[in-house]
Amino acid sequence: MCRWVAYSGSPVLVEDLLYMPKNSLIVQSLNSRLGAEPTNGDGFGLGWYGAQDTPGRFRSTEPAWNDRNLRDLSAHISSRMVLAHVRASTGSPVQETNCHPFRHGRWLFMHNGYLNGFATMKRDLSMAIDPALYAEIEGSTDTETFFYLALTYGLMDDPPAAVARAVGVIEATAQRLGVPFPVQMTVATTDGETLWAFRYSSEGRSRSLFRSTDAATLRQQHPDSPVLAKVSDDARLVVSEPLGDLQGAWREVPESTCITVRAGSEELQPFAPTALQGVG
Amino acid sequence: MCRWVAYSGSPVLVEDLLYMPKNSLIVQSLNSRLGAEPTNGDGFGLGWYGAQDTPGRFRSTEPAWNDRNLRDLSAHISSRMVLAHVRASTGSPVQETNCHPFRHGRWLFMHNGYLNGFATMKRDLSMAIDPALYAEIEGSTDTETFFYLALTYGLMDDPPAAVARAVGVIEATAQRLGVPFPVQMTVATTDGETLWAFRYSSEGRSRSLFRSTDAATLRQQHPDSPVLAKVSDDARLVVSEPLGDLQGAWREVPESTCITVRAGSEELQPFAPTALQGVG
Amino acid sequence: MCRWVAYSGSPVLVEDLLYMPKNSLIVQSLNSRLGAEPTNGDGFGLGWYGAQDTPGRFRSTEPAWNDRNLRDLSAHISSRMVLAHVRASTGSPVQETNCHPFRHGRWLFMHNGYLNGFATMKRDLSMAIDPALYAEIEGSTDTETFFYLALTYGLMDDPPAAVARAVGVIEATAQRLGVPFPVQMTVATTDGETLWAFRYSSEGRSRSLFRSTDAATLRQQHPDSPVLAKVSDDARLVVSEPLGDLQGAWREVPESTCITVRAGSEELQPFAPTALQGVG
Amino acid sequence: MCRWVAYSGSPVLVEDLLYMPKNSLIVQSLNSRLGAEPTNGDGFGLGWYGAQDTPGRFRSTEPAWNDRNLRDLSAHISSRMVLAHVRASTGSPVQETNCHPFRHGRWLFMHNGYLNGFATMKRDLSMAIDPALYAEIEGSTDTETFFYLALTYGLMDDPPAAVARAVGVIEATAQRLGVPFPVQMTVATTDGETLWAFRYSSEGRSRSLFRSTDAATLRQQHPDSPVLAKVSDDARLVVSEPLGDLQGAWREVPESTCITVRAGSEELQPFAPTALQGVG
Repeated sequence: MCRWVAYSGSPVLVEDLLYMPKNSLIVQSLNSRLGAEPTNGDGFGLGWYGAQDTPGRFRSTEPAWNDRNLRDLSAHISSRMVLAHVRASTGSPVQETNCHPFRHGRWLFMHNGYLNGFATMKRDLSMAIDPALYAEIEGSTDTETFFYLALTYGLMDDPPAAVARAVGVIEATAQRLGVPFPVQMTVATTDGETLWAFRYSSEGRSRSLFRSTDAATLRQQHPDSPVLAKVSDDARLVVSEPLGDLQGAWREVPESTCITVRAGSEELQPFAPTALQGVG
Repeated sequence: MCRWVAYSGSPVLVEDLLYMPKNSLIVQSLNSRLGAEPTNGDGFGLGWYGAQDTPGRFRSTEPAWNDRNLRDLSAHISSRMVLAHVRASTGSPVQETNCHPFRHGRWLFMHNGYLNGFATMKRDLSMAIDPALYAEIEGSTDTETFFYLALTYGLMDDPPAAVARAVGVIEATAQRLGVPFPVQMTVATTDGETLWAFRYSSEGRSRSLFRSTDAATLRQQHPDSPVLAKVSDDARLVVSEPLGDLQGAWREVPESTCITVRAGSEELQPFAPTALQGVG
Repeated sequence: MCRWVAYSGSPVLVEDLLYMPKNSLIVQSLNSRLGAEPTNGDGFGLGWYGAQDTPGRFRSTEPAWNDRNLRDLSAHISSRMVLAHVRASTGSPVQETNCHPFRHGRWLFMHNGYLNGFATMKRDLSMAIDPALYAEIEGSTDTETFFYLALTYGLMDDPPAAVARAVGVIEATAQRLGVPFPVQMTVATTDGETLWAFRYSSEGRSRSLFRSTDAATLRQQHPDSPVLAKVSDDARLVVSEPLGDLQGAWREVPESTCITVRAGSEELQPFAPTALQGVG
Repeated sequence: MCRWVAYSGSPVLVEDLLYMPKNSLIVQSLNSRLGAEPTNGDGFGLGWYGAQDTPGRFRSTEPAWNDRNLRDLSAHISSRMVLAHVRASTGSPVQETNCHPFRHGRWLFMHNGYLNGFATMKRDLSMAIDPALYAEIEGSTDTETFFYLALTYGLMDDPPAAVARAVGVIEATAQRLGVPFPVQMTVATTDGETLWAFRYSSEGRSRSLFRSTDAATLRQQHPDSPVLAKVSDDARLVVSEPLGDLQGAWREVPESTCITVRAGSEELQPFAPTALQGVG
């Protein structure tokens, strides 16, 4: 069911982020430790921000572990905000338009999990999407529909509120249609300045999610560790599973939490779906 | 804007159909004579019927002209009903789920043309699709939506009537939304026994479409032609453009026509969209 | 390091062979039990014999587990001799020309294992290939070079002798260049009538290889088993690992063995490399 | 037979180079004006230099004209030296390892043309390659063999001399084996600082090659042209065919010429193959 990595901080060379850690996202594409399935070989995607108005993105249907283009590009891209994702399909086809992160304007969005009974709910959820956005949808994943619902409910203005509304609509729809435990998610989304990540599931048993301890603190704990050499003090990572074994480097993000990362600081808040009047 | 070939008759080796003619579909993928664009290199698809309940299908994003798998498979597949298509995208992504022919149960469907202003009409048209079928849609082409509208309006019972209704709904929707000349099409669809092909456009200036003269007649006209050696008497082809230059072998299908091919005989009838009550 | 399946017998529907068993080759592409690595997602290949002079072949860089074309094609191909392979690359690129089985005329060849120190030996081994065959090589795998060495040493006349000579040349070359334990292999090769399989390694610790017990015997042992329903009495399989758990159905092929399967019977003989005069 | 573009000068946004010109390389991938064939849809490649020791490279088997990753990446890469190529295969498979530019350390190399009778010459030419380099070859194109011959004869020390020797060896080999007019080429190669381009063919009828007039001169000739707005004074392009129609902007590179571009200046010298003692 996918694994992902989100980085915010001083510009990082994407190759250092994706390939160097002991349990890197590339390692996880072949053999993850905490994923619902070990292998996440149904394509991958990379999004990053630079000097342009909108983020760059590279997606492929090839498994990440042997993709040479990804290796090459990673060695030549540095960025202050990087989202990367390796996919394990839950049934929808393996194609570039079904790879995360999804993009709209300056926004990127990726997801580990699924919308249960999506085939049953798809039409109703699609109809709840802002009609002006509907034709933008290019793939067939539950995630893309979820993203466009979040956009519909104001992702670009207030991401936590928008995601809460989107989840609320999905759960209300599921209830109406008799679908149990509809939402299983960890999500990351960003506008290139701030990173929001969420951990939630209707059943309360969500996919794994971790956040990094800041490098300054870690350097005190591990003064001799070479691993920390390239990590800037303002670097913050939110990840599906720890990228390495350094003691104290990774702290689990609790269930039903939204974490906001900006300028080297982070804030955790409870997350819960909200119901919309007249919807669902 | 695509080119296609449909064959009905005694089993034909797909390689003979796709690769041997002077202006074969493979030649047309690189350089068609009568297509809206010469090159149709945005993927291809092949559908055929055998002993199974449902037709086989092979689709790829690679241009057909150099695809080795297609060459290999063609040499090993014989079938009494074959639909093959090479794609020139009108904007939607190049991916297998956007390649024709589309399939539903025993039915195959392919198209040359486009639905003008599809982005404007997409939501409304998608909502007109039978809710029970909606979640089957995997791609993002106008053709796939058109196919599912035809299924919604009874393609499996009466294809000419269903296609006429689907076109009627599209044109009514276009009128309501201010989209000019919405439908440009040649279409082929089959259940494995009968082949229906259509030539129509809202503007009355449709993509090219031809049907073959029967081999018995041609053999009388060209007693020495080696080209006809492998063609059975009951073979009928409907094609975007002639596969060769044999005099008298190809006759244009008129505008606004539906051609029905079954068991070595064919029938042409006028085609016109029909309006549905309360729709559009 | 790959897994493979070879079938010989009454025509089998490829889908039954590839998808139905509990530990099918498709399952093994994602998670094999006995492979050097669990995942074999670096492409796949299928070869089969029909009415044509040469076998058909379908190869792709996509992992086998989610490939729709493979599923579709398998449902429409029946054959008396089928070779199928899922790849785990040992370093060479993931591309169709590096997928097995390799083909030359009527012959197919596939391999699980590697030639140790291949980069060191490649030039010398390439030079030992029949100059008339050299330009046919399209990929960069050790297996393809091994195949062309076998062709050079008479594969088409006497496969066991040819493979023995090829291995002998590789080992002599390795000794000269200081490469330890150069050959690790299970190999299957066929001309469409007879199937030869080999298990051997320079170190004596070869990849797994099993052969099936004949169906008639198994039906006596398991009179109620539905699994055996579709298996013809002359069916013989040679496989990297057992396709299921039926007691007595699979017997390990010993180290240093060549197994010859023809017309529902099989013969095991010792296999050892032979040295060529003046080579290596 | 391919088209290519080489840029040297102040950092250019790759998107401006590849997508903006009227007859851009992307346009040429679908429909070139002066190429041996109009369509060059058998894959593409992009190489560029940045802060790393070695150049970055992105290659794909997809036609360039609809490749979204290429569009995205181009919008996010700026570089002082850019080589880009769209391929029309002369027979070898369509795979990433057969896409140009080829790379060795800091060096990139691309080619429009072919080595006539390559299948006949391949073994001999392969044997002339430095044994230490032989195993690096991953594809099956004539170009890659040509590149490795040039490396063997000192490309990294003196490119014009090395290319001259390589062509000499190819022509001598061809003469020995009875292959007529073996070499057809325009070639570009660079170490990231200097760009060398060559136009030559054994027959004296080479593929097209042009160089740009400097922007300062052009601005005098066309003071109102917006096209020149983004072109730096030290920008120099060497291209298969003109990227636009601006009068005086493109001058043909004569037959049998080597052009050296460095730091905004260029030098043309005659090019002729040289014979090596004891080779061929």
